[in-house]
Amino acid sequence: MAPSHSDPVAVIGASGALGFGLAIRLALAGVPIAIGSRDENRAQETAERARATIDAGEFSAHDNAGAAAATQTVILSVPFRNQAETLHNLAQALTPGQLLIDATVPLAAAVGGRATRTVGVWQGSAAQQAREMIPDGVRVVSALQTVSAASLADLDHPLEQDVLLCGDAPADKREAARLLGRIDGMRCVDCGRLEMARITESLTALLIAVNARYKAHAGIRLTGLPDPVWE
Amino acid sequence: MAPSHSDPVAVIGASGALGFGLAIRLALAGVPIAIGSRDENRAQETAERARATIDAGEFSAHDNAGAAAATQTVILSVPFRNQAETLHNLAQALTPGQLLIDATVPLAAAVGGRATRTVGVWQGSAAQQAREMIPDGVRVVSALQTVSAASLADLDHPLEQDVLLCGDAPADKREAARLLGRIDGMRCVDCGRLEMARITESLTALLIAVNARYKAHAGIRLTGLPDPVWE
Repeated sequence: MAPSHSDPVAVIGASGALGFGLAIRLALAGVPIAIGSRDENRAQETAERARATIDAGEFSAHDNAGAAAATQTVILSVPFRNQAETLHNLAQALTPGQLLIDATVPLAAAVGGRATRTVGVWQGSAAQQAREMIPDGVRVVSALQTVSAASLADLDHPLEQDVLLCGDAPADKREAARLLGRIDGMRCVDCGRLEMARITESLTALLIAVNARYKAHAGIRLTGLPDPVWE
Repeated sequence: MAPSHSDPVAVIGASGALGFGLAIRLALAGVPIAIGSRDENRAQETAERARATIDAGEFSAHDNAGAAAATQTVILSVPFRNQAETLHNLAQALTPGQLLIDATVPLAAAVGGRATRTVGVWQGSAAQQAREMIPDGVRVVSALQTVSAASLADLDHPLEQDVLLCGDAPADKREAARLLGRIDGMRCVDCGRLEMARITESLTALLIAVNARYKAHAGIRLTGLPDPVWE
């Protein structure tokens, strides 16, 4: 069955491992992807790599601002070290009404520390920092911190894991869930307001510790929830 | 099949909902339970309530220090508000070699705040505060923060959830996993050093937020781990 059509989605930082995995998984689900990179040539290379990885899919290449300006939904998947600068440069490209899905994790690795630890973010979380930096009216949902690049890249296996969503508007979380839920085996769960992102962001560090012990690519499933999770 | 015999385990705070659920689940699995409470009469009442709840099981009643002194393994299940005082009063009863399984969660509710938020603990986590307060040589494992009292009390359903263990000694975590793994449907996962408890403790707040949205008793399963998790 061919996937149904969808509006295009920008992936900022698609040349990184998580961003690339998201781009190909969403493209396989029928979502046209605007690949964003700081350098447009790098975006072109990433788009070619994506086309070579999967036979299906629709990819266009842009600099970050071009990708953000071309779509109504923007996924931000950059290292914490680059989050503030990237958002600063995007401020002119983002417009009220757009949805920003922030996947940033403030790992201590950003400042030379361990990937099993986080640094404190003044606003409470990277997602709240994002909200502070973008124009009013751009909606923010935090997501995807517990999904590993390795499991996204392993196209032979369904993900079998949840995406923990945090955001202040239920409608925004529902919209993010509808998009991300197109990926096979990916279920989105509403985890509360955007401030809860300080907990979901720290889970990346926890899963990195678990993965080191078990040589695994662990994900998270919440048990005991109604089925379906979204009415 | 009758459960195999086990050494007794103390549950400090067994009159609380989580402690009570743990006590009856462990007793059903064949573990003799030393019920500890600040007040020995309250411990007696709790033991009678436990006997009335399940037909099987072996329960004795003590004040907290008596319960801790009577066993090699002590589960601490008290509100954060009471953790420091309880440990202060237990300091004489605990002896080197004992295993303390700390289930404390520093919810902001302890200081009149929301149960979907935590307060910062100077040592990093309630488990690290516990380690600082107990005699040298008492071993500490952090566990059980993601397991709800309601799901423990619902004896008709297997738990189908993981217990996230943090501790500095792999052997201690293995010992805790062997004990808690006796409960039907409860799998223990090694999540790294004791300092990681600051993440697992915050998950209680996250699950409370999820439960409020879904009117559920959510638990956590990690996906992608080897089977069995413990060799």
